[in-house]
Parts: sequence; C-alpha cells; structure tokens
Amino acid sequence: MTGPFAHGEDAFLERLRRRFAVPAAPRGGLGIGDDAAVLPGRPRRVVTTDLLVEGQHFRFDLLAPADLAVRALEANLSDIAAMGAQPEAVFLGLAWPRGAAASRRLEPFLAALARACRARRVPLLGGDTVRAPQGATTLALAVTGLPHRGGPVLRSGGRPGDALVVTGALGGSALGLALLEGRVRVSREAGARRLAERAAARYRRPRARLAAAPALAARASALIDLSDGLGLDLPRLARASGCGFEVRADLLPVDPAAARLLPPDEALRLALRGGEDYELLAAVAPGRLAGLLRRLAAVGVPAAAIGRLLPARAGGRLRTGGTVRRWVAAGWDPLRTGRSRGLDAAASRSVLPAGRRRPAAG
Amino acid sequence: MTGPFAHGEDAFLERLRRRFAVPAAPRGGLGIGDDAAVLPGRPRRVVTTDLLVEGQHFRFDLLAPADLAVRALEANLSDIAAMGAQPEAVFLGLAWPRGAAASRRLEPFLAALARACRARRVPLLGGDTVRAPQGATTLALAVTGLPHRGGPVLRSGGRPGDALVVTGALGGSALGLALLEGRVRVSREAGARRLAERAAARYRRPRARLAAAPALAARASALIDLSDGLGLDLPRLARASGCGFEVRADLLPVDPAAARLLPPDEALRLALRGGEDYELLAAVAPGRLAGLLRRLAAVGVPAAAIGRLLPARAGGRLRTGGTVRRWVAAGWDPLRTGRSRGLDAAASRSVLPAGRRRPAAG
Repeated sequence: MTGPFAHGEDAFLERLRRRFAVPAAPRGGLGIGDDAAVLPGRPRRVVTTDLLVEGQHFRFDLLAPADLAVRALEANLSDIAAMGAQPEAVFLGLAWPRGAAASRRLEPFLAALARACRARRVPLLGGDTVRAPQGATTLALAVTGLPHRGGPVLRSGGRPGDALVVTGALGGSALGLALLEGRVRVSREAGARRLAERAAARYRRPRARLAAAPALAARASALIDLSDGLGLDLPRLARASGCGFEVRADLLPVDPAAARLLPPDEALRLALRGGEDYELLAAVAPGRLAGLLRRLAAVGVPAAAIGRLLPARAGGRLRTGGTVRRWVAAGWDPLRTGRSRGLDAAASRSVLPAGRRRPAAG
Repeated sequence: MTGPFAHGEDAFLERLRRRFAVPAAPRGGLGIGDDAAVLPGRPRRVVTTDLLVEGQHFRFDLLAPADLAVRALEANLSDIAAMGAQPEAVFLGLAWPRGAAASRRLEPFLAALARACRARRVPLLGGDTVRAPQGATTLALAVTGLPHRGGPVLRSGGRPGDALVVTGALGGSALGLALLEGRVRVSREAGARRLAERAAARYRRPRARLAAAPALAARASALIDLSDGLGLDLPRLARASGCGFEVRADLLPVDPAAARLLPPDEALRLALRGGEDYELLAAVAPGRLAGLLRRLAAVGVPAAAIGRLLPARAGGRLRTGGTVRRWVAAGWDPLRTGRSRGLDAAASRSVLPAGRRRPAAG
C-alpha cells in the first residue's frame, strides 16, 4: 500500500499530528495522540470521536442493528474510561443508506442506542442525519467526558518499574467473532456451547470499564484501552511513556472461553492480539499496585498485574517460562490492508481474521 | 418517502430529541435543537457535529479537495458563530475510499484543512481515519466553541417586536452552484464574468461570520446561521422563539451577482431559498438594533434589518410592496428526496437545484 496510509494508523496519526501542530492545543489541553483530547477549563473535558463504516468496521450479517448501537457507544465510552473520566454527553452523526432493508434497521438501531444511553446515564445532545446515496452505513460518534479526581490519565505518564495492570480477560471478543464467522467450531456439549455464546456476546455487546475509571484516575500513572489488542496497544502506552516493557505470558488473563475451546498457544495468541475487548491497561507505580487492585476488586472489576514497564532500551518483551521473545506489534490496524505480522509461524492458520476485511467496531 | 425520514429533517430531529429525552442534558446545558449543544461549566462550551457525504453533500467534479476542506470547516465554524461563540477545537473523522483517484485527493484536502485551521487559529485536536471500502468520501467534523460575553445565544430567545437582522447578502452560494452546474449562463462581458466568479467562490469557499459573533453575543436575543436558506432557517428561529414573523422583500440583501445576472424575481427566490450562504440571522430587541448595526459595521460585517418577529398567531409572511403572502418554508433539506415546495409557480423553471441530488456542504 502506498500513500499517506502506507505506514498504518499510528504513522498516519503522527503525520496528522505534525501537520496540525499549529495552532497548538490551548494551554492545559491535549491534542492528537491519546485515547481522547483534553480541553482546559473547570472542569477539564475530554473529547473522543470515532467513525464506523459498514464493511470496514462491521457487517450486518454478523451484527444486529441493536448490537451495532451498543458496540458503537461502548467503544467510545471505553475511550472516555481510558482517560480516567466519566462520560458526559454523546453526539451522533448517521449516514444511513436508502432502501427497504436499510430502513428496517434504523428503528431498532435508534431504540437500542436510546436504551444504552439511558442505561449508562449519558445524554445524547446532538444529532446529524443524512441519507447516504451509496451503500455504506456510517456512524460518527463524539463523546465528551469529565475526569474523575486525579484524572485525566494520559498514555504518557508511565515510568520504568511501574506495574502493568489489565482489567478483565483478553481474547473473548476475537473468539466471538471467529465463532460467528465459522472459523472456529465447538462441540455440542452444553458447557462448550454456553462458553461460545458468551464469547459471541462479548463481540456483539462489549461493555466499557466505566466502573474502573475512578480507581484508575486516582492511582494509575498511564492508561489506555485495549481496542486494537494488547499487541498494539501496550507498545503505544510504552512509547508514549518513553519506556520499554516486559509481559509474563503466564500472568495474562486469557478469556475463559478461549482457554477452554482453543489449544493453549492459540488462546494465548488471541489474548495477545485479538482486539475489541475494550478492557483497560494501566501502568501503576509499585507502591500503589496493591491499593489499586483492592479498589478495583471493591467495585467488582477483575484485574491482573501482567508485567512491568522497563527503560526504553529494553524494548518490548514477552516472557514465557524461561524464554524471552521480542514483542511483535500486531493486532487490528484499520489502515493496513495486509495481514498483521504474526507473533510466530502459526499466524497463517490462526483464527485471527485478516486485518483488511475484519468487521469490527472500535 | 416513508419511514423515519418521511417528514424531513426537522421532524426527524424532533423525534430524535423526544427519543433521547432521558437522560436530559446536564443542568445549564442544552441538547438537540439549536445550532450547537451547550455543555455546562466554566467556561460553558458549545459543541457542533456534522457529517458530509460525497454524492449527497458535495461532488468532486464541482469542488476541489481543497475547497471541500474549507467548506467543511467554515460550515461548522458558522454553527459556532451562530451560538455567539468562538471556535475552540476541531475534531475530524475521515472515511476515504481506496483507489488512485481518491488517494490523490487526500493530500491537497489535508494541506488545505491545515491552512484553514491556521488561518482561523483553531487547533485540530483529534482525528480518526479509515479506508472506506465503498465509494463515498465521508467527513465527520466536530467543533467545540467558547461563548463570547453574553453568549451562548439560542434560537429560542426572540420576542415579538424584535427586529430581524441578517449579515452579508443572500443567494450568492446557490447562484455559484447553478453557474458551476451550467444551469445559468452569463455573458462574456468582463463585469458579468467577474460577478460569476465571485458567486462560484462563495459556493466553493464560504466564510463563516466569526467576526460578527462578539457583537451578536452581546446584543442578539436569538441567533441562527443560514445554512439551509432563509426560507427554512427563519421559521426555525421563529418557531423556537414561539413567534411569527414578517419579512419585507425590498429589504432583503440580495447577492450583487444574483441581482445583476438574474431576473429580479429569480434573484429574490435565490435570496429566500438558496442555502449555504453561512450568513447569520439574528433577532434583536428594537432598543438594541442601532447599537448592534454600529458594532457590526465597526468590525466590517455588512448587516441589514429585513423585518421583525410577530406574535405566533401571525404565522410567517413575506411583504412585497402592498402585497402580503404567506411564508412557504422551502430550501435545502437533506432528508427530503423530492423537490422542495416552491414559493410560487416559477419553481419548476428555477435555477434552484432539486433537493435530492443537490451537492452541498452544510
């Protein structure tokens, strides 16, 4: 691939950041490069925007309109949580195609979005709707948020020695998508089917970790959400913090369904590279780790320490027993057409979908 | 047309507003229904979002990528000005099609947007870019703004007796589009060609009335921008204010090119119904009118009093000499497929484009 997208999303955003460096963000604010921008004032506000395109980010044969509404909202709420903030207001731009099939989808989409906004107590304060002349349903979401005490938490605040903490479990959403696409089959045994259904639900209806945000705002030194997978998102946090890192494979919280339904190496690959879990990854000073884990447990958020930040010269590493391998940044990159580079040779038979056609919101 | 879009944009937004009424906007804030939403705090912020779709809002055979960048930005800045606010930050979502022709457009688009942001001293603080698998270039803009002293000014603050004031001149952008589409021909005479070029530039590169916003924030009781045309936007302001209105046709500031190049009745039609001039329409208490016009003149913004608000029972009226006609709400409605209803029988031979295929940003 050539042109401005040639180096993937991170490189494109970096070029965009340089191109739009003047005028700079207002004093006390923050521009391109984190999960959300920061606007100064009292209170400071965080703002995240997102564009979801049918065929690129989602497919209606795998995702009901109501699922799309929940996914789109939760993916953006996750960006707000990843700033240590609570959502304040939602703005929605909709380009909806003409035709009977598309029109039938609009009502359940809007009804589900209204329900989801009520459930999250976030008002929708602006809307813009156009009939798309061509086929792709497109959603543009913008969400504003208000930092919890101690926030906003940026990607850039991590220091060598900080513990790396991840909420929940990883790989469930990617497994759910693989199941929906028929790339993985499960036995007819009841326990296996229940796990498979749970994984599919994780893909269809992710849930942002809003409950974890107050504790993380108070104690985390750096924070990011796992939308593109640990493989890509951890290096982003580390790079922004000017650090290297090491992760212990045996400490990774692998999604229970993936752990039960897949061979161990494949389950680990999904935990490392499957995106769209919308869990949070934090760097925490060692002295604050125990307190953070206690507070997260108190609000019902599972969390695990999986490794630590290192000096930048260490690069990124994955430790498996006594073996240390170089970290390969791989996951979901919306601007790459080719397949992501594999962590190992097993990539070619992975259940991970090809990057280009991957239907995914986030 | 059936379904949720059947009653046009205003009706759809009203249904959206009701559907998303819970949870309500935070205290001191404002949701759907004005040029921008209002978020409480110090300072209060205004937020506007916009979705522009190729084929629906613009066509690259009429609009260069650099023009598109300027139009998209200025249309959103106009919404900020229409709240009596100054722009604070821009967020851009881009869905850009694959292929050589589309790729060649991206660089000039981004370069022009960066120039326009610098010229307006507005930082771009967030970006999200995806490769669109299908053909339509789509832009999602969000702009935040900070109210000037006395602002934000809503559509709803007008009172019967208030003077109606419009900045600049009307109909130039619609004439420019008609010229670009070859629906109007001009003589080869130098003066006529210069006017035609100026009208085309008004379509291609509109300029939001940011300079007028401080004066209007201090003195206007209600404010809206003219993106869909006076025919539609004036009734919106009047309805929000619970008023009727009367406009005097002889006071309408008709674009000089339209006045020179078109028959008088056609020029008047463009001034009434041509959209995308991105001028501002204000309601002003009679005692503040002279002061407002002086302050606008002092910052170089032409302005004219064109009529006044009336009690609601009066409805909307257009006075031409001794004749008073009922106002017909007509202009550019992105959700209507059919042609807008005409102000008179001349509609069928008007230079105004059909609503459905009209390429327009706003």
